[in-house]
Amino acid sequence: MQRYSPEFLTTVTQDVFIACGSPPGEAAIVAEQLVGNNLMGMDSHGVVRIPQYVGWVEQGTVKAGAQVSLVEENGGTAVVDCGFNFGQVGGLRAMEIAITKAKEYKVACVVTRRCTHVGRLGYFTQIAAENGMFAMAMVNGCKDVHWVVPFGGREGRLATNPISYAVPGVDHPIVSDMATSMTAEGKVRVHRNRGQMLPEGWILDADGNPSVDPHDLYGPPHGWILPLGGSAGHKGFALGLLVDLLSGTLAGDFITEDRPRGTQGVCFIVIDISAFVPTDRFRHLMEDFISYFKSTPPMPGVQEVMMPGEVELKTLADRQKNGIPIESFTWDQIQETAEKLNVEIAEH
Amino acid sequence: MQRYSPEFLTTVTQDVFIACGSPPGEAAIVAEQLVGNNLMGMDSHGVVRIPQYVGWVEQGTVKAGAQVSLVEENGGTAVVDCGFNFGQVGGLRAMEIAITKAKEYKVACVVTRRCTHVGRLGYFTQIAAENGMFAMAMVNGCKDVHWVVPFGGREGRLATNPISYAVPGVDHPIVSDMATSMTAEGKVRVHRNRGQMLPEGWILDADGNPSVDPHDLYGPPHGWILPLGGSAGHKGFALGLLVDLLSGTLAGDFITEDRPRGTQGVCFIVIDISAFVPTDRFRHLMEDFISYFKSTPPMPGVQEVMMPGEVELKTLADRQKNGIPIESFTWDQIQETAEKLNVEIAEH
Repeated sequence: MQRYSPEFLTTVTQDVFIACGSPPGEAAIVAEQLVGNNLMGMDSHGVVRIPQYVGWVEQGTVKAGAQVSLVEENGGTAVVDCGFNFGQVGGLRAMEIAITKAKEYKVACVVTRRCTHVGRLGYFTQIAAENGMFAMAMVNGCKDVHWVVPFGGREGRLATNPISYAVPGVDHPIVSDMATSMTAEGKVRVHRNRGQMLPEGWILDADGNPSVDPHDLYGPPHGWILPLGGSAGHKGFALGLLVDLLSGTLAGDFITEDRPRGTQGVCFIVIDISAFVPTDRFRHLMEDFISYFKSTPPMPGVQEVMMPGEVELKTLADRQKNGIPIESFTWDQIQETAEKLNVEIAEH
Repeated sequence: MQRYSPEFLTTVTQDVFIACGSPPGEAAIVAEQLVGNNLMGMDSHGVVRIPQYVGWVEQGTVKAGAQVSLVEENGGTAVVDCGFNFGQVGGLRAMEIAITKAKEYKVACVVTRRCTHVGRLGYFTQIAAENGMFAMAMVNGCKDVHWVVPFGGREGRLATNPISYAVPGVDHPIVSDMATSMTAEGKVRVHRNRGQMLPEGWILDADGNPSVDPHDLYGPPHGWILPLGGSAGHKGFALGLLVDLLSGTLAGDFITEDRPRGTQGVCFIVIDISAFVPTDRFRHLMEDFISYFKSTPPMPGVQEVMMPGEVELKTLADRQKNGIPIESFTWDQIQETAEKLNVEIAEH
């Protein structure tokens, strides 16, 4: 597995999306998020997505460079029409509007329409936290990706419907980003590719029976992912519904409507912390908060209790120094995609 | 087990809290919530609490009739000082302020200070939903009730930190109300009292080892409750932290500060749905939404997929008709408490 510098990968990614029709500034947003995801170890949301995204542009699902518009606003709320531009571009605009509204009204809620794959939610909430805000983000998925069964059900009705939140910390923001299912689909794929069985309680086979064989998720006939919680899976189901309510129904979407694969709905809730607590005091509160949790004695076999996002920060430090490892299979696909678009890849 | 009419129990409960010093209107709020919780089957949050609440008044933890004040407001946000009045009274006032602010700013975030036990969170979110709002509520607990371990830890750092949300449905609001731990403490108590073992993955014993024996939670030495998620327990931990951040830190609380047992912090986020979708259309969206989930074929052994709050509505229908069953042990304690306060209990 070869390592590549983040600067090099950013240039390649940006050039590919410019060749797809994105203005340079917008291509830079997509590149920044994808390479940033790799830097934090979230490779399933990194440059591996380049061929998929380019495919969506070719199919017309993604409209590079499309207008992103604030179509409705009322007090602290807004609706942003992303025009099927890259989800990173539409999502960032929606978050910028949410931050602006939170500065004015102290709390904001912004939803999107006609939004495509936004990638990693924590990218957006972290930006808000770096602006002194608390932010929560949710994203749903169209019917094609309804892998997740309701609690007690044996047929998918929800996407993995993640929830992210971020808050200013001491040295860096605390960023949490989690699917409301037992696992993201990508983790099952990793187990399959490595020939490993899954932990119990992650998936059902096509007949609705519990399975630990990752092949049962892909079939054919394909299986399903279980909601977060195991014997308390009604809680994960309720959280998945919450995501659909805020990022779909609130934006005016019928859940049963057929939408192009890859489209999503996002909801951002942003709170201006300084409306409640002065910035200096909040920092002291967070010092106390973090050290209380970090002081927990670990279970046998565990080194230390980790705060949300802490593992990713360790990976970030390593990859900023040593580069981002990419399997040759993935790199070949990126190269092919670039060649098809006549994008020249510099020596590295 | 004898059954009592909700009207009778409401009168008794209200009279007890009037005798504790609450104005009749405030005693009625506490009574309405406690008896309402029984009606919905949530007996652990019902009239069984009367002796505990009266004890708190005697100890000075709860100050019946204390002033509840809006101490800070800024745009869509507010801080409510509950003055250690009953949590139901302070919480309801905070929710009323949140609804008023959401009507003006379309989204609101209200937190409390000096708040005591608010009881069932769904009580508050349902009121918002009946006013056409989407509402989310969170409540944390002081160190004395930090039963829940961080993921990978073997010592409690969080309360069961529930999250509730509610949204207008078709015939009635959809109300979800869930601890962010694998179980509420009360459910472990019920298993212990019935001599039943627990499902795997709910608790740790005092040494940090997994246990299915409910006695291990109570000890001595006592054990701990695990965060929601099992092998994905980092997600339940992250949700528990979210609750502490919004209902504690945002209100200016140091998490390590010693507080009187029974005090809590609440955060309400309320969104005016009509800022996004007209009421009629939202009803159609919810019809589609609910029927999509209810149409899920059930797993073997399951009758039907249930929406959040659906089980409670079935219990409500039964108990409104047939009365609320209360064990004689609990009823005796309530009678003793009433007698101590010279409250006369009518024939029933």
